[in-house]
Amino acid sequence: MADGPNCDLKSLSPLQLFERVTEQGEKVRALKAGKAPKDEIDAAVRMLLSLKQSYKTTTGQDYQAGLPPRDLELINNGTTKEEDEDFVDPWTVQTSNAKGVDYDKLIVRFGSSKIDTDLINRIERAIGQKPHRFLRRGIFFSHRDMDQILDAYENKKSFYLYTGRGPSSQAMHVGHLIPFIFTKWLQEVFDVPLVIQLTDDEKYLWKDLTTEKAYEYARENAKDIIACGFDINKTFIFSDLDYLGTSTGFYKNIVKVQKHVTFNQVKGIFGFTDSDCIGKISFPAIQAAPSFSSSFPQIFNGKENIQCLIPCAIDQDPYFRMTRDVAPRIGQPKPALMHSVFFPALQGAQTKMSASDPNSSIFLTDTPKQIKTKINKHAFSGGRDTIEEHRKYGGNCDVDVSFMYLTFFLEDDDRLEQLKQAYTSGELLTGELKKVLIETLQPLIAAHQERRKQVTDEMVKQFMTPRKLAFEF
Amino acid sequence: MADGPNCDLKSLSPLQLFERVTEQGEKVRALKAGKAPKDEIDAAVRMLLSLKQSYKTTTGQDYQAGLPPRDLELINNGTTKEEDEDFVDPWTVQTSNAKGVDYDKLIVRFGSSKIDTDLINRIERAIGQKPHRFLRRGIFFSHRDMDQILDAYENKKSFYLYTGRGPSSQAMHVGHLIPFIFTKWLQEVFDVPLVIQLTDDEKYLWKDLTTEKAYEYARENAKDIIACGFDINKTFIFSDLDYLGTSTGFYKNIVKVQKHVTFNQVKGIFGFTDSDCIGKISFPAIQAAPSFSSSFPQIFNGKENIQCLIPCAIDQDPYFRMTRDVAPRIGQPKPALMHSVFFPALQGAQTKMSASDPNSSIFLTDTPKQIKTKINKHAFSGGRDTIEEHRKYGGNCDVDVSFMYLTFFLEDDDRLEQLKQAYTSGELLTGELKKVLIETLQPLIAAHQERRKQVTDEMVKQFMTPRKLAFEF
Repeated sequence: MADGPNCDLKSLSPLQLFERVTEQGEKVRALKAGKAPKDEIDAAVRMLLSLKQSYKTTTGQDYQAGLPPRDLELINNGTTKEEDEDFVDPWTVQTSNAKGVDYDKLIVRFGSSKIDTDLINRIERAIGQKPHRFLRRGIFFSHRDMDQILDAYENKKSFYLYTGRGPSSQAMHVGHLIPFIFTKWLQEVFDVPLVIQLTDDEKYLWKDLTTEKAYEYARENAKDIIACGFDINKTFIFSDLDYLGTSTGFYKNIVKVQKHVTFNQVKGIFGFTDSDCIGKISFPAIQAAPSFSSSFPQIFNGKENIQCLIPCAIDQDPYFRMTRDVAPRIGQPKPALMHSVFFPALQGAQTKMSASDPNSSIFLTDTPKQIKTKINKHAFSGGRDTIEEHRKYGGNCDVDVSFMYLTFFLEDDDRLEQLKQAYTSGELLTGELKKVLIETLQPLIAAHQERRKQVTDEMVKQFMTPRKLAFEF
Repeated sequence: MADGPNCDLKSLSPLQLFERVTEQGEKVRALKAGKAPKDEIDAAVRMLLSLKQSYKTTTGQDYQAGLPPRDLELINNGTTKEEDEDFVDPWTVQTSNAKGVDYDKLIVRFGSSKIDTDLINRIERAIGQKPHRFLRRGIFFSHRDMDQILDAYENKKSFYLYTGRGPSSQAMHVGHLIPFIFTKWLQEVFDVPLVIQLTDDEKYLWKDLTTEKAYEYARENAKDIIACGFDINKTFIFSDLDYLGTSTGFYKNIVKVQKHVTFNQVKGIFGFTDSDCIGKISFPAIQAAPSFSSSFPQIFNGKENIQCLIPCAIDQDPYFRMTRDVAPRIGQPKPALMHSVFFPALQGAQTKMSASDPNSSIFLTDTPKQIKTKINKHAFSGGRDTIEEHRKYGGNCDVDVSFMYLTFFLEDDDRLEQLKQAYTSGELLTGELKKVLIETLQPLIAAHQERRKQVTDEMVKQFMTPRKLAFEF
């Protein structure tokens, strides 16, 4: 490190500054321990103090050894975490607001961009089709670099899609379908190849599971994913436990990412601690690597640097902020992203639907009767306490879970608007709104079950075989 | 964690206790942050204090957050590190003693066992041959569980060998040959299969190298290794960067090890810091995994739990202490080990020979003239300052590098003993001793170069192709 302390400290991020202070501290200790000449020690100490001052100026906080800035982008955006602020990371979503997480705030905190009317119109022009209801209704609400994807697309330069799932149990719920429904639509309208990662290794690391069980869940989940209707000629589904041992490109990208991310960084981004196993600590690189086309030499015929677009729920963004930070340093293009909101639990939008709480979830295996019972019993209502009050004051669609689910699954915009007005005015009762949802979900899930039945082991094998996909870049 | 604090704290290692204290501290903070009932917080604090007391009783030191006990086995063995003690880890060997590292102390510190006369005699009986000079002369001086290997072998139960090399440059030196010469002998006398790991991923992570360059070094080094004369039908050589993407078993074992080792542990064992990249932090699992036969389904025909024996230099032991700690927890047998001393630098036994310092090393590519010049110019002499003094007082074989090298390479025990006596008595001069070494090494290296020339790319490819080896278990 030949540069003086003042060279370019202003261009450093809080985390980079933190690491410079830590390194300099270690250097000072080493010099003292090695009984170096006094002037050399003094110079190193002066540099340390100068670095600490820069750290304080940038972050507004004193440097504390072992405590890196918690979230780089949080600090960069000048916001501070409040007591009752929404909590969002890849494992937990929690808010005190019945309307759900404040997504506009999240965009500011994460430093992403809003999917606004201009962008939606531009997508419509590019594909020559009506945008998906998830776009029309702000369910996919945030993005990174979609403009670049569209610029390139308009110049006949294509891209590929990457999404995934952590196969923690056989039972998938309707919320799990959201990214896949949207990804299938993107695949169709843009006519692009798609890779789907099943992070069975992640589930093995985080849960009390054997590798065999995690892999079995991956294969079972693949059936539900295939039932969404993906094009077998343009889709590759892979289990990490399986694919890592069959790809000549995947591990090389993983180790490249792992070389360029420090423990301080994953501590700051994911909140890992010293007691976490080294598997968890290095896992983010495994979710990052499919963002680079060279991880799939069979699919892209060895062609590298193909642009990637990742549709995912916003809680997965930390992985890809990290990926985007590393990409240019390993000579790869940054992946673009489209972020969805969370799918609310039946009990209300304070948490997302979770397979580990059966009462919060409508599973893809539920019978029509179970669907009906769960919605009637558990779906949080924005209606009034008595019919009289409801007729008089009307219901609140902003917190009504049945209405929220309809925004996800009812295709007809006019009908949705009618329901909203009727419920808000008090004309439509909670029971009637629930009935509409039940009648929307029952056939949808029944059709899914029908398609899933037709997914054979042979089809799963085909989807999961690394092979050239039907696309020329 | 339903257990009370007093259940079985005495059976915990310092590191396990450290982690219990850390976890409990986090629990207390969470309870306070979550404004839990006072009695609950009080109970948690009492348990924390009790755990801290146990930690102090076990380690003799106060618990300090973020500072795990530096080396588990060090503490377990009740020794403490002194200022001028030998330093040995996988990257550095340093001692102030011209005779080299104190290996008897190292056995105590590492908690391994000495290869004593009884064990050497037992090996001789088992194989029905004279033990290798490296055993006769204490060059392989330490072991773990060799008795078990021999018990099993005597009962017709076989094992496999695993050794390796970090391919940091094309240039290998004579010291690098030591484990391979010994492993080749073990392969012959026990008639067992062998896997050789080339950790090109490690070198990519630690050095300023591309993955391509690291892989190229791996292939070049493979040629020198093959030139040692390994049986192509019983030997598999692999590069991590390459093999990880072609084995269905390797990654599964890696992730299993990674689940059972925490950052605190690798911090304690290898001295990693928060500024280290996550690749380094998770790498130890990659060196651990070849200790389990299920990492090589092709070789062992899918047969698992075959016992492994690892011949290596003692500085690699930290990796395998960790491996042996994890093995029973993932249902695998602990690998046995045989440890060699370090091969001294030309300048003296205070450090080991290092390819990065050309003056310290005799390379396998050196010409007869280079060998002669280097030995005459650099080999540290145990002789006296003047011929007269030397004749009168004699030379010191304990610090004479030429004599040390002869113990490695001169096969004839009687001749070695004669040289020792003649040098010690002053009859033999330094120049004469160096001449014997030069005349021993020149033909040995020339023969190696001749064999290496005959190693074709096709042979490298065969050795590096995963395949069933000629052995039935």
